Amino acid sequence: MTIEQNDFGNHENSLSSQERNGLYKAIFSRRDIRSHFLEGKDISNDVLVRVLNAAHHAPSVGFSQPWNFILIKNRATRNKVKESFEKEFQKSILSLDDDTLRQKKYSSLKLEGVMESSLNIRVTYDSTRFGPFVLGRTSVPETGAYSVCCAIQNLWLAARAEGVGVGWVSILSIEDLKKILSIPHHVNPIAYLCLGYVSEFADKPDLEKANWLPRLKLNDVIYYENWGRIHEKGRWSDFSSAVNTIEEQ
Amino acid sequence: MTIEQNDFGNHENSLSSQERNGLYKAIFSRRDIRSHFLEGKDISNDVLVRVLNAAHHAPSVGFSQPWNFILIKNRATRNKVKESFEKEFQKSILSLDDDTLRQKKYSSLKLEGVMESSLNIRVTYDSTRFGPFVLGRTSVPETGAYSVCCAIQNLWLAARAEGVGVGWVSILSIEDLKKILSIPHHVNPIAYLCLGYVSEFADKPDLEKANWLPRLKLNDVIYYENWGRIHEKGRWSDFSSAVNTIEEQ
Repeated sequence: MTIEQNDFGNHENSLSSQERNGLYKAIFSRRDIRSHFLEGKDISNDVLVRVLNAAHHAPSVGFSQPWNFILIKNRATRNKVKESFEKEFQKSILSLDDDTLRQKKYSSLKLEGVMESSLNIRVTYDSTRFGPFVLGRTSVPETGAYSVCCAIQNLWLAARAEGVGVGWVSILSIEDLKKILSIPHHVNPIAYLCLGYVSEFADKPDLEKANWLPRLKLNDVIYYENWGRIHEKGRWSDFSSAVNTIEEQ
Repeated sequence: MTIEQNDFGNHENSLSSQERNGLYKAIFSRRDIRSHFLEGKDISNDVLVRVLNAAHHAPSVGFSQPWNFILIKNRATRNKVKESFEKEFQKSILSLDDDTLRQKKYSSLKLEGVMESSLNIRVTYDSTRFGPFVLGRTSVPETGAYSVCCAIQNLWLAARAEGVGVGWVSILSIEDLKKILSIPHHVNPIAYLCLGYVSEFADKPDLEKANWLPRLKLNDVIYYENWGRIHEKGRWSDFSSAVNTIEEQ
């Protein structure tokens, strides 16, 4: 979608079209960075503070702000994290033994930038913060961890706006990481992020470019009034057409 | 923090200062809306498409895009959801029986806008999408649900930019909701959102204003190199001072 093509209407309380454009640009050009980190170029303190402050202003269940950010530059620590990745990556390759074509493709992908990035950040969830009663968390305890994910997305978008790439390394052992970073039992590690300036933000996600998976059409992930109900004539007819229009752009 | 006061440097690949300003404005002025919905003012199709398209461009583990958005306007459906909220809310009030002061305050808070909002959206996580092997999800299965949360934060920020308020109703029974919306067993409901135009985006979160909990200082949620390690002289000294500077603004 080209944002510039949109005819933005202005509503009371909405941001200006320039401001909205900035948000959408960050959203659509954000990438999961694995292979484009520029080594040796540090993130300035001002930029890093702004990025973390953006994360800290995410929504959280009951305003519990249950996140912590462990900033990691130490190379010995990162080496241990990289070893955990290698171990878990090998395990996952073996799980594709019945599909050698996919296994080969998977093995060839570059999936982390732990050592090449300027900074690693472990983002954690502390379920005990302001507890045990956390407003809004009584029915669905997972909403605590979900809050931390909202903070991660804020961080990711702010970093993009600052020209800093972020990669989320998920092929890691939680137990390894808890040991390496002395994370206590009651704290749940949510994400391991690699941050740094990049040579480029590619026009499409790496996995889409590599034909690993296609992007779904927006209409394919929208249901109406009930699970599984796709467009039918009536209340949602015009809206469903509007969705098709954006996909043609 | 007043964004306008910042001296934005421009880095290669960063957005312009106006664009960054738009993103930060969305992040810092976003609110969890419960009581400021304007009844009877519908969200236009174009705006809703943009907001959902922003959600659909979130990062997802292995590019699995495991989200669905069930758009709900039907008032009979919403009434059933509201009943589930009331039931769960009463249960959670009882859990504060040993703290009557807090119980009284909690009972007085307005925590959802299911009926007053223009639209409800159930956001779900389908763990079977593109599975069973999802790249990057082999070590930490929860990363699938975490991807959906990133999409929710994109949606929330885009809505804010469009002048549309969003409230996440978490005091609900997952089982009730699965029944009401015919959600199959393998699909995990992540969030129930209420969307609509609002009379205002308050300057602070409702729960902060009501003195339910204070906002933590940014420095209180940052650790260095290891869990629990706060600032010490050395590599992180200047950065820690920079964090203090932003908090004084």
